[in-house]
Amino acid sequence: MTSQRVVIALGGNAMTGPDGSATPQAQRDAIRVAAGHIADVVAAGAEVVLTHGNGPQVGNLLVKNEMAAHVVPPVPLDWNVAQTQATIAFTVADELDAALRTRGLSQRTAGLITRTLVDLDDPGFVEPSKPVGRYLPREEAERFVALGQNWEDRGERGWRRVVASPEPRSVVDSPAIHALAAAGFVVVCAGGGGIPVTDDGRDGEALRGVEAVIDKDLTAAILARELDADTLVIATDVPNVMVDFGTPSQRPLGRVTVAELREHAAAGQFARGSMGPKVEAALRFVEGGGSASGGRRAVITSLEHIADAVSGDDAGTVLTNS
Amino acid sequence: MTSQRVVIALGGNAMTGPDGSATPQAQRDAIRVAAGHIADVVAAGAEVVLTHGNGPQVGNLLVKNEMAAHVVPPVPLDWNVAQTQATIAFTVADELDAALRTRGLSQRTAGLITRTLVDLDDPGFVEPSKPVGRYLPREEAERFVALGQNWEDRGERGWRRVVASPEPRSVVDSPAIHALAAAGFVVVCAGGGGIPVTDDGRDGEALRGVEAVIDKDLTAAILARELDADTLVIATDVPNVMVDFGTPSQRPLGRVTVAELREHAAAGQFARGSMGPKVEAALRFVEGGGSASGGRRAVITSLEHIADAVSGDDAGTVLTNS
Repeated sequence: MTSQRVVIALGGNAMTGPDGSATPQAQRDAIRVAAGHIADVVAAGAEVVLTHGNGPQVGNLLVKNEMAAHVVPPVPLDWNVAQTQATIAFTVADELDAALRTRGLSQRTAGLITRTLVDLDDPGFVEPSKPVGRYLPREEAERFVALGQNWEDRGERGWRRVVASPEPRSVVDSPAIHALAAAGFVVVCAGGGGIPVTDDGRDGEALRGVEAVIDKDLTAAILARELDADTLVIATDVPNVMVDFGTPSQRPLGRVTVAELREHAAAGQFARGSMGPKVEAALRFVEGGGSASGGRRAVITSLEHIADAVSGDDAGTVLTNS
Repeated sequence: MTSQRVVIALGGNAMTGPDGSATPQAQRDAIRVAAGHIADVVAAGAEVVLTHGNGPQVGNLLVKNEMAAHVVPPVPLDWNVAQTQATIAFTVADELDAALRTRGLSQRTAGLITRTLVDLDDPGFVEPSKPVGRYLPREEAERFVALGQNWEDRGERGWRRVVASPEPRSVVDSPAIHALAAAGFVVVCAGGGGIPVTDDGRDGEALRGVEAVIDKDLTAAILARELDADTLVIATDVPNVMVDFGTPSQRPLGRVTVAELREHAAAGQFARGSMGPKVEAALRFVEGGGSASGGRRAVITSLEHIADAVSGDDAGTVLTNS
């Protein structure tokens, strides 16, 4: 293969235990496995930029915020996103550096704190709808409602906090990501979709973090465009995107065009909270654009297949323009 | 001035409120002020790499760990260090980018998650002695002693956790820091002295975080050497290092040589927990080395004077080889 730039988006399952456990040891163990697969992509000759989810990790931090709120001031959600970027990035760096060294590769890993710009007038801020963190009984949830948070009655399990999930507009730090990738580093960045920041447009005013979470796959699509990547790989827990899921005509998608995949999406084939955003991210990356070295390609597949997916067109669901 | 590479180490006071408060807003307000001074150094033509302390911030995270320990698994201290790197770096990036833009400068800020290598057989691990976090009554402290932590009876105020503070050996991520600085970024890195990691030396084994905190000024000295910096600036809350402090012959040090400063240090002029490590860091950086563009220089001064200190020799305590 010729050298290509690949953005890989790792799902949360690549960073937690088989039971979803997000203890430090469970995260480290899962990341060690993921690091091997990523190193294989580097070994195949690709320049790799890595991004990742952070759902369970942010959930843990929210609990700590809540339980210590009467002793230390809670930090806003954007700070929690930043915190998960750091713990995941350095753990990935430790394990991926070892995996690269074992394969005789000279590349090393760099973890960049990454901000993603969102619009202050994004509809997500008017109607926060993304559930985060744990369920609490109503009386406990009300303490946090009093602090200005949005919590919703989710029925039997209790109340749960809901936050805005605005559209990512651009990755503020993509020039730094580009500089590191160009210098030969595997860059871990934009974790959890990036730290959401807004720009109020006034002269001299700083960007500001805002309480929200951003879909990490949608950010990955923007990042891949900004970095002029050739391939966006969305690593998930299934080898292929399925259509007619759960029916007798259920089948995995292999090679697929933008037009075909748009049609499946319009027909409601993909669940909003799971495969939907991944398909949308793949479409946004590939649609209407070629990278400097040719047509863009997006692959949705499981971690075990990412190296094959980058090297050829025979693994996973492979999306191209035509 | 000719272009020079400057490593600036910010003390905790540059990132907390006047009363030591470390709420998100107090940190943001203090960082805005610091960002102006740092931007002035960039405006003077220097290539700036920025590192910083994290004491109050880590203290807050330890409290959260403790208070939520029965619901979510506590994370090790190295994870807390990483978390503070992220929140401080992105806040600095927001404010410093605005300060750079206001001054018409094209540089932007990049925050790098940074690991610092320490020796597993460092004496610090045998006799942990660095107090961190809050005071607790004995019966509460004993819960954490049972988890394997070291807590000490500190008299009237109660018990306090003590951790290892090993010597920094090298900054694992300095090649990435160099790449970003060379590409024109102001790099925020090695916060809190860096995430302490150890290398057990076995083939294929990953580096591993270890529960410790590293003196941020000693790490800054190593970083400045590894980056071949011309000047190390240690920003603190006084304009000069003092000798004979609190006596009739008390006087500020201006220009001073390594031999003179070593003599003052040997005479016990500098307090172990405060000015001592700063003086030691300055000495370690300057001693026995010239940068590619000439002799090395270290400056210890207050934030207000850092731009003057970088441009000339008339502000702060300025250490040179001779």
